[in-house]
Formats: sequence, structure tokens, C-alpha cells
Amino acid sequence: MSETIAARGGEEFVAALRGLSHRYWGTHPFHDRMHAGELTERELRVWAANRWYYQSVLPQKDAAIISNCPEPSVRRAWVDRIVYHDGSGDGGDSGRERWLRLCEAVGLTRDEVLDERHVAPGVRFAVDAYVNFARTRPWVEAVASGLTEMFSGHLMQRRVGDMLAHYDWISRADLAYFTNRIEAVSGEGKSTLDIVVRYCVTRDQQDRAIAALSFKCDVLWSMLDAIERAAKE
Amino acid sequence: MSETIAARGGEEFVAALRGLSHRYWGTHPFHDRMHAGELTERELRVWAANRWYYQSVLPQKDAAIISNCPEPSVRRAWVDRIVYHDGSGDGGDSGRERWLRLCEAVGLTRDEVLDERHVAPGVRFAVDAYVNFARTRPWVEAVASGLTEMFSGHLMQRRVGDMLAHYDWISRADLAYFTNRIEAVSGEGKSTLDIVVRYCVTRDQQDRAIAALSFKCDVLWSMLDAIERAAKE
Repeated sequence: MSETIAARGGEEFVAALRGLSHRYWGTHPFHDRMHAGELTERELRVWAANRWYYQSVLPQKDAAIISNCPEPSVRRAWVDRIVYHDGSGDGGDSGRERWLRLCEAVGLTRDEVLDERHVAPGVRFAVDAYVNFARTRPWVEAVASGLTEMFSGHLMQRRVGDMLAHYDWISRADLAYFTNRIEAVSGEGKSTLDIVVRYCVTRDQQDRAIAALSFKCDVLWSMLDAIERAAKE
Repeated sequence: MSETIAARGGEEFVAALRGLSHRYWGTHPFHDRMHAGELTERELRVWAANRWYYQSVLPQKDAAIISNCPEPSVRRAWVDRIVYHDGSGDGGDSGRERWLRLCEAVGLTRDEVLDERHVAPGVRFAVDAYVNFARTRPWVEAVASGLTEMFSGHLMQRRVGDMLAHYDWISRADLAYFTNRIEAVSGEGKSTLDIVVRYCVTRDQQDRAIAALSFKCDVLWSMLDAIERAAKE
């Protein structure tokens, strides 16, 4: 039925995507408490160990998109993400390594992060659903699901600033290492949006892109719900 | 039942893998005729257009392996293949581009290669089965399927030399472009073998790796069978 409705113009389509910003986890109560300095040491550790699980699977999610994508130009743009997260050479410069440093900054050992003992089932289900989405859905829907980048802005930089201000027990050196390198990820939203607008040209494709972004907002929000509950126990 | 049989030692395992070399398409009658200068212009064009289809999906096959692989060090090694095939920047330095040049060298236009009009159904089935294998099987089996690299040696360089010697109607300039850059792929067999030996430690895993390589030999051989038939029509 949706095929009988005309496609949105580019601006209208982008506005519909941006209209989901209120569903982004930036406004989740757990994030509010984090920025206000109200989390306990345990809560910050549970958050970091679970957030790590999400970060650790991103190369596999991004590779699934490349595997499903027949467009060389899109693959060329996307492969940089895998290299960013996994790093080059021995991986010492990787996004992975930066997140491990953040975990250490809040008092976790590498072992307890890498063996995933703190990962809550609800977080695992949500993250695995995201990877499964990228593996099984058309590549442009999986790309659209990554448009939460549009909403993140400099949230991570602000977060680190607030952490330094409010949690004086956090390791300054490890957090600084994380902060200094996180800049590289900003600005990804624009190129991702360009791909989605270019390849979603029918109303149906646009609707699926919006649904994909909605799904991704649910993934992130569910993660924080599960983290919040796990940290209380 | 195979779990009760002890794993092979490293050398025995490698010997079992190398023992499949007679199944490699290097000895296929169509390749023999190619090297002997006995193919018609039409046969060489059908070969190139179909071989292109195989080359064109390799980035997606390699991305599937990365998507299924939880080992960052393996992913870091494997991502270079995607970059090799797709290239960087505008892709002008890509393996894709080199293969398109080879197709042009034997008299095909880019359009008739890219729209896949010459791809024989049997070639498509075999190649798609290979990508599907990489998407659905454990990552180390998919890596093992790539061990046909062990058997290719400098086959491609020799092939180009034989083409220059036997087919004087082939475009020298385009073929030279292909030849000059093909060197980069040699030597891949060793690092792939290292990964397979390292991660296939039980008898069952080793058996699956051998079966994966056998499957890949079938994929390549079937491609040439289908190419041979298609070129006769």
C-alpha cells in the first residue's frame, strides 16, 4: 500500500529522521544522573562494562553491512569504521583500546571487562539484536540504524567533562587517553545521512529507514534500562 | 564420533590441506587450453566476464568473515583484503579496477562486464554458494575455504605471461596494468594457513577446515565447467 504514496522530498525525509531525536538515549534518566554526578562507583562500573559490550561488537556489525552491500563506494566509506574500532598494527590505537582505558578509568580490570562477566542479559539481547539486524536486513536499513550518530553530537565529550567534574575518584590519566582520541568519531552523522538519502528513494524505503532508526533507539534505550536495573542489584 | 580421534599434529594437518592441491582449478582442461594459447577470443571474453563476477563479490565474502569473527587480531589482518579489492579514495587503485582492465584487455566493455550479462547461471550459483558459506559457517571454516591461495602460487602471473605470448590481439596496455599490480596478492596463503592451524585445534575443527577447502575447490572447478559450456554456445 505504501508504494502508492509518493516519496518524501529530501528535506522532509531528513526531518522525519531527525524527529526521532527524543527517543535517543541522551535523555534517559540514567544518563541524566550520570551527568549530574549522582551515580555510585558501582553504577559507573556496571555502565562501563556493559557499554563496552556494545562497542566491542561494532566491527562485526559494520562488517555485516559491507558483506550485504553491493556498492563499492559505500563499502569503501564504511570499511574505515572497522579500522577505527579495531585499529591497525597491534591494535594499540584502536577504539577498542580507548574503551578499555575508559573501563580502567572507572576501576575495572581488563580481565573482568573482556570476559563479559558484568554484561547484563538485557544488554546482550539488545546488542545482539542490533548485530542480527545488520546481518539480516537490507544494507541501507542497517546503515540507517546507525543514524543515532546524528543525535550524539558531542555528547561523549560532554560526558567525559562531566565525569571529570563530578567523580573525583576516576583515574585522570586513563580518562584523558579516552578523551583525547574520541574526537575522531564526530561528524560521522553527515556522511551516513547522505548515503541513506541517496539510496532510500521510494516511500517504502524511506519508511524502512525511519523504522530502522526507531529500532536502534529502542536498542540503546533498552541497554540503559538493563544497566540501570543491573546496577541496583 | 570424531571427537574421540586425536587432533592431527600441525604438520600432518597442513599436509592434509595441501593434499587437496590436485582438486585446484589450476589443472582444469579450460586452464590448460588457456595457457596453451588454444582459446578463441569469445572463450577468453566469456572467461574474463565470469571470472570478474567472482572477483567482484570477494569484498562481501571477506566482510562476512569479519562479521562472524570475534577475534580482533584476525579481523585486523582480514580487513586489508577488503581494502585491497575495493581500493581507497575513489577506488582507482583497487583490485576491482585491475580486473576491469583485464576484461577490457580481452575486448569487453565496462558496461557489459558490470551489468553481468555474460555471467553464466552455473558461475553465479557457485560464487553465491561461496559467499553464502562465508556468511553462514563458523568464521574459521570460511577462512580455511580461502586456502586455495596456497595452490595459486604465481599462477596468475604465469597466466598473464602466457596470454601475452599466445594471444597477440589482447590489449598490451590494459594487460600490463593488470600485471604490474597483481604482485600484491601473492604470499597471502601463509598468513591464512597460520590462522587456520592456530584456531583449528580439535580433530573435528581440522576435519571441517579440510572440508571447507574441498568445498572451495568445488566452487572454482564448477565455475570453469560452467564457463567452458557457456563459451561453446
